[in-house]
Amino acid sequence: MGIKGNIIYGQSGGPTAVINSSLAGAIEASKEAGVKKIYGMHYGIEGFLHEDIIDLRDHVKDAADISLLRRTPSAFLGSCRYKLPKIEGNEDVYEKIFEILEKYDIQYFLYNGGNDSMDTVKMLSDYARMHNKPQKFMGVPKTIDNDLPVTDHCPGYGSAAKYIATSLKEIMVDSDCYGPYRTSVCIVEIMGRHAGWLTAAAALGNNKPDLIYLPEVNFDPDDFIKRIKKLAETKSSITVAVSEGIKLEDGRFVCELGSSSDKLDAFGHKQLSGVGTYLAALISDKTGIKARAIEFSTLQRCASHVVSRTDADEAYNAGYLAAKKAFEGCTGSMITIKVESRAPYLVSYSNFDIHEIANVERKVPLEWITEDGTYVSDEFIAYARPLIMGEIEPYYSEGVPQHLSLK
Amino acid sequence: MGIKGNIIYGQSGGPTAVINSSLAGAIEASKEAGVKKIYGMHYGIEGFLHEDIIDLRDHVKDAADISLLRRTPSAFLGSCRYKLPKIEGNEDVYEKIFEILEKYDIQYFLYNGGNDSMDTVKMLSDYARMHNKPQKFMGVPKTIDNDLPVTDHCPGYGSAAKYIATSLKEIMVDSDCYGPYRTSVCIVEIMGRHAGWLTAAAALGNNKPDLIYLPEVNFDPDDFIKRIKKLAETKSSITVAVSEGIKLEDGRFVCELGSSSDKLDAFGHKQLSGVGTYLAALISDKTGIKARAIEFSTLQRCASHVVSRTDADEAYNAGYLAAKKAFEGCTGSMITIKVESRAPYLVSYSNFDIHEIANVERKVPLEWITEDGTYVSDEFIAYARPLIMGEIEPYYSEGVPQHLSLK
Repeated sequence: MGIKGNIIYGQSGGPTAVINSSLAGAIEASKEAGVKKIYGMHYGIEGFLHEDIIDLRDHVKDAADISLLRRTPSAFLGSCRYKLPKIEGNEDVYEKIFEILEKYDIQYFLYNGGNDSMDTVKMLSDYARMHNKPQKFMGVPKTIDNDLPVTDHCPGYGSAAKYIATSLKEIMVDSDCYGPYRTSVCIVEIMGRHAGWLTAAAALGNNKPDLIYLPEVNFDPDDFIKRIKKLAETKSSITVAVSEGIKLEDGRFVCELGSSSDKLDAFGHKQLSGVGTYLAALISDKTGIKARAIEFSTLQRCASHVVSRTDADEAYNAGYLAAKKAFEGCTGSMITIKVESRAPYLVSYSNFDIHEIANVERKVPLEWITEDGTYVSDEFIAYARPLIMGEIEPYYSEGVPQHLSLK
Repeated sequence: MGIKGNIIYGQSGGPTAVINSSLAGAIEASKEAGVKKIYGMHYGIEGFLHEDIIDLRDHVKDAADISLLRRTPSAFLGSCRYKLPKIEGNEDVYEKIFEILEKYDIQYFLYNGGNDSMDTVKMLSDYARMHNKPQKFMGVPKTIDNDLPVTDHCPGYGSAAKYIATSLKEIMVDSDCYGPYRTSVCIVEIMGRHAGWLTAAAALGNNKPDLIYLPEVNFDPDDFIKRIKKLAETKSSITVAVSEGIKLEDGRFVCELGSSSDKLDAFGHKQLSGVGTYLAALISDKTGIKARAIEFSTLQRCASHVVSRTDADEAYNAGYLAAKKAFEGCTGSMITIKVESRAPYLVSYSNFDIHEIANVERKVPLEWITEDGTYVSDEFIAYARPLIMGEIEPYYSEGVPQHLSLK
């Protein structure tokens, strides 16, 4: 393949449970191709600008390390939320980056992230093209939010969806344990500010929540309360899955309502409560029914103990293929997944122009949301089911999962 | 063993991830002893008073069902939070219970729960003794809180501790992913109103939180802020594990402080925020450092996907032995665990007078908390480590864990 120099790999944005599988794939592809130095950016492009660069062969030494790396949650290399400035007027930033690339003889630059992070790949490949630089820049898709365009789905989503479906089912059987002797509503708040992919995953368990609200559809508080009252006529345990990003018809986030009155925290600061807390309080106020809120919070993206094998394998393949494509001379492109067949589940990988991907958000198709806006359709289930299939067992030692770390 | 009639089993109080392992043990012991009818109370003693009784042979048919039952979180039979009234003046309640027992020819009554639930065993065995009733009443220990006296530890605790250690580690590596570029504090709020056993489990991971606060020691907000400031001088990611039940020197719960000002929710009701939310706001106010709170919430007691095999096996044995003891004529007693050796880990089972157990709470010994009150000692680690060892893998189907249910 005519390998010309060294490779560097960076992780960017919020981590996922399988983010390091992509890194593992890229490391193995680089070793197979005979790349001399396999570098890692410590804390993404932000660390790179401080020349914080790691020699990955020192840290991921053998097949056992690769196995452990694939079981390690959060960004092994450290991540960042740093957006490169526009090229015009900020040439110094880009010159610095390319100076560092040249200093380390880096010819292949792989960047693993979501929509925002793909902007880094776009800017660098654009700059390289403008200045006839030889380096190749490839994007490796990663986001629990599943909102990257072009690709059928995104590595990271399947595992987060599996965690949500698993944990929600467990919460539901727990909520249900007092049967007819206690009526209560449990609001489970799930990540996803603009797209409802994660919240939709609530429908993948074998106990299903009663209502599912995605940000793709306007939320009507009056209709919501009506539905809760109706459900309470026949059920003692009611579960609602709700996206943190649901909005009213007038465009305001529902979570803002909690702070729209003069609600202050104990220190006099305006407080933004979660949408779950707000809806639980709304239910108690309007119906008198006991309601509580649960937030899945960070565990949605870092639960290495509930990982989809399908997702982890696809993450690995995306990293592997991004390296391979870069070695073949490809640049300004992101690896994408196409589902050739859902049953049996068969995929193919390709790559796509980064300009069509960076900063674009893909939402849940409205056809996959029921007409009344309170559930997802069977089409969504058929889409998402294969993505959560299979498991990767953690390596337990001393009773807790073991991970690989940089120190 | 001279089996005389039928057996009934009830689950009471908050569920655990291994509560149904005890039920499985009791079912198998009953089958082995040749008991004709193995009944379950649907929703504990509360359902029993409504004669809501299940024939368990209809629902747990074979070894495969037992395996699935052992992997099922929350109370398979349904639970209750119902405390029997004192006998004097409420003889009608007790007469009704014994009428039902006689109607179903129930000679053995097993009740699975914590301190409060053991009160039911105490009251019924007392009543039986007073009125020369032949039925035997045995307690099966169960609580994630680990606050039952006499027994070295309590089934349910090991799995909750394993979940906490596992999830906290994952949250910590996630929090740490931006390295020196972002300073933040994460407060993780853990269950335990009066005893700190669960919060102490935060020390069992291989990444350790910076501070651990148990309710056994008074909490000093000024000292807390001083420590956070000090930590922030050298660390960018700080993690604090805190029990929901920590108190000030004057006896007030810290979580009450959040509502001590005129803090109202969006509907004008006084709002009780969690201690985590309060402390995060306190940090932001006093230090300007970004802080957030995570609550493990219900998943601490229902995460069947992170179960300690040691705990599950002990839960099974406790149920098995409670049935066996009842068949032998024992009554008014609860099964207890004694650790004969911590390395290798060897236990023996015994049983103890329920009068010494019901309504008594056992706290973390003060010697196991560091002198400055901000951590647990190695003695606690040595105590708890064996309890979280080993795993029980869920049976996954369709990508999510499968459970046994009554319908």
